[in-house]
Amino acid sequence: MDTINKYSDIIEQAVKSLQLPADRLPGLYEPIAYGLDTGGKRLRPVLALIACQASCGTPDPAIPAALAVEMFHNFTLLHDDVMDNSDTRRGKPSVQKKWDVSTAILSGDTLATLATQVLCRLPDPCLRKALECFNKSAIEVYEGQQLDMEFEKRSDVSLSEYLEMIRLKTSVLLGCAAKLGALAGAATDMEADLWYAYGEALGLAFQIQDDWLDVYGDPATFGKPIGGDILNDKKTFLMLSALAGPNAEMMKQAMAMPASEEKIKTVRRIYDDSGIPQACHNAIEKYTDQAVKALDNLNIAPGLYELLVSLARNLANRTK
Amino acid sequence: MDTINKYSDIIEQAVKSLQLPADRLPGLYEPIAYGLDTGGKRLRPVLALIACQASCGTPDPAIPAALAVEMFHNFTLLHDDVMDNSDTRRGKPSVQKKWDVSTAILSGDTLATLATQVLCRLPDPCLRKALECFNKSAIEVYEGQQLDMEFEKRSDVSLSEYLEMIRLKTSVLLGCAAKLGALAGAATDMEADLWYAYGEALGLAFQIQDDWLDVYGDPATFGKPIGGDILNDKKTFLMLSALAGPNAEMMKQAMAMPASEEKIKTVRRIYDDSGIPQACHNAIEKYTDQAVKALDNLNIAPGLYELLVSLARNLANRTK
Repeated sequence: MDTINKYSDIIEQAVKSLQLPADRLPGLYEPIAYGLDTGGKRLRPVLALIACQASCGTPDPAIPAALAVEMFHNFTLLHDDVMDNSDTRRGKPSVQKKWDVSTAILSGDTLATLATQVLCRLPDPCLRKALECFNKSAIEVYEGQQLDMEFEKRSDVSLSEYLEMIRLKTSVLLGCAAKLGALAGAATDMEADLWYAYGEALGLAFQIQDDWLDVYGDPATFGKPIGGDILNDKKTFLMLSALAGPNAEMMKQAMAMPASEEKIKTVRRIYDDSGIPQACHNAIEKYTDQAVKALDNLNIAPGLYELLVSLARNLANRTK
Repeated sequence: MDTINKYSDIIEQAVKSLQLPADRLPGLYEPIAYGLDTGGKRLRPVLALIACQASCGTPDPAIPAALAVEMFHNFTLLHDDVMDNSDTRRGKPSVQKKWDVSTAILSGDTLATLATQVLCRLPDPCLRKALECFNKSAIEVYEGQQLDMEFEKRSDVSLSEYLEMIRLKTSVLLGCAAKLGALAGAATDMEADLWYAYGEALGLAFQIQDDWLDVYGDPATFGKPIGGDILNDKKTFLMLSALAGPNAEMMKQAMAMPASEEKIKTVRRIYDDSGIPQACHNAIEKYTDQAVKALDNLNIAPGLYELLVSLARNLANRTK
């Protein structure tokens, strides 16, 4: 059976081979290299490579698409950290903190265009379709970020609005990555759309698990303090589920508490009493099943199929 | 003879027909519509349309390219105004002032992707070449902005470094606009490159004229206070020419003066004594001649040729 590492190694190699002209203009390109050196999972580009492997027997044709999606994703993080005024990213200082706001904006812009430039390495038969999916997904990611910012100022966000927001902000890019990989592997349009459905459902499961981990994660492995979303009154699947349930009033009172360990405990108790962990589990399972169902409609070699199913199941059961 | 207005009308029409979903997500799309409603000259897209008209007898095939370049240009203004902390743009509040920094960043990002999306309306035969030129020019524009910001902190900027900066920040996009228009009009690669040379040289002449107008413009028609660059110690063709001339020491002393009408007068006197207006005139003429020379190597119908020459000459002699 293939391993995820085989594919993430290809990505690391491709990122290294980008040859950014950092010597010529370090003020612009060093922050880009810093932003791309994530130590992250490279989930999106790995999806692109696997979809290509499954479609044509080799991941190589999808390398431009995989790299483009990873670059685009990292560009959005550079700008998100300015908009959210975040000082850290994956345990390191964010670009806007390590350099400054202007650098994060301009290096981000450059990284976004570099991503499109890399995507354009795809050959003619699939370039136009790849660009259509890539541009559409990019716009949806911006719309998701806009909704996320607007939700901060609203007290009446519904669970379905929230799900649409995370679909836009997170899931469509996973769907796009998988679809682009399939297109690069000469998949049919129908197959490419099934790959999109797999990535999109995976992304929803992933984000809900992320919300769950913030409250119920293991502090030893989670990598950041537990309860951060509660302290920041962040709209999450958990909060909005509680607000839509029988303990809504209690939840509102808890949200009015000042940030403290006591607040985290209180909210967690309400979540426990309201069956929120089970609701998370059910939603994650629903989207994971959706992802697997999309796979089942594709004709994927057994080894790869297992890898993709375990990718979905593992994401939904991860502890960090 | 054709008129510029004929072409700028096509652009206004195309901008209006964009159908941004401002009803659905006003927080993201209203700032974009605001940023695109410039009342400006639409110089870049007009160039694209004229190059197309000259190449194939109609401007229509270049509309996606023209629109894309105009949208890209306006995206850069949204972000530049954040980086430069500018509160006004063309006499109106900038997006970052009227809304906020996050809005200017995210609406700018969206506008940039929308620009690429519109460019992708070009048909296959020229799409790849158009994207190559567009992406390359975009990266150069960012590099120009980076250099511009770095120059603010340096006291040893040379005139040739300055010219390279304005080439990147301003001229390449005019070159790109003209080249994309030609490509859309099925011009050969060699013709397209001559159109690029025309636009690029025009851009250099335009920017030096802009620097000149800030000091010697007619307050009645210039639209902003005369001497702004002097008060802000902004590196311009005039300042760097003076610093490279015999009155460099006097110029340095004048630059050390506090911002005042007296400072403007003093600097202008040094410019006058150093022959700077003539140096501007010579440089503008040099680049205008370069632009016309590129035209002369193209086989352009007489009426259009005259329009393009007068466009170059008028830009170089404008008073606002």
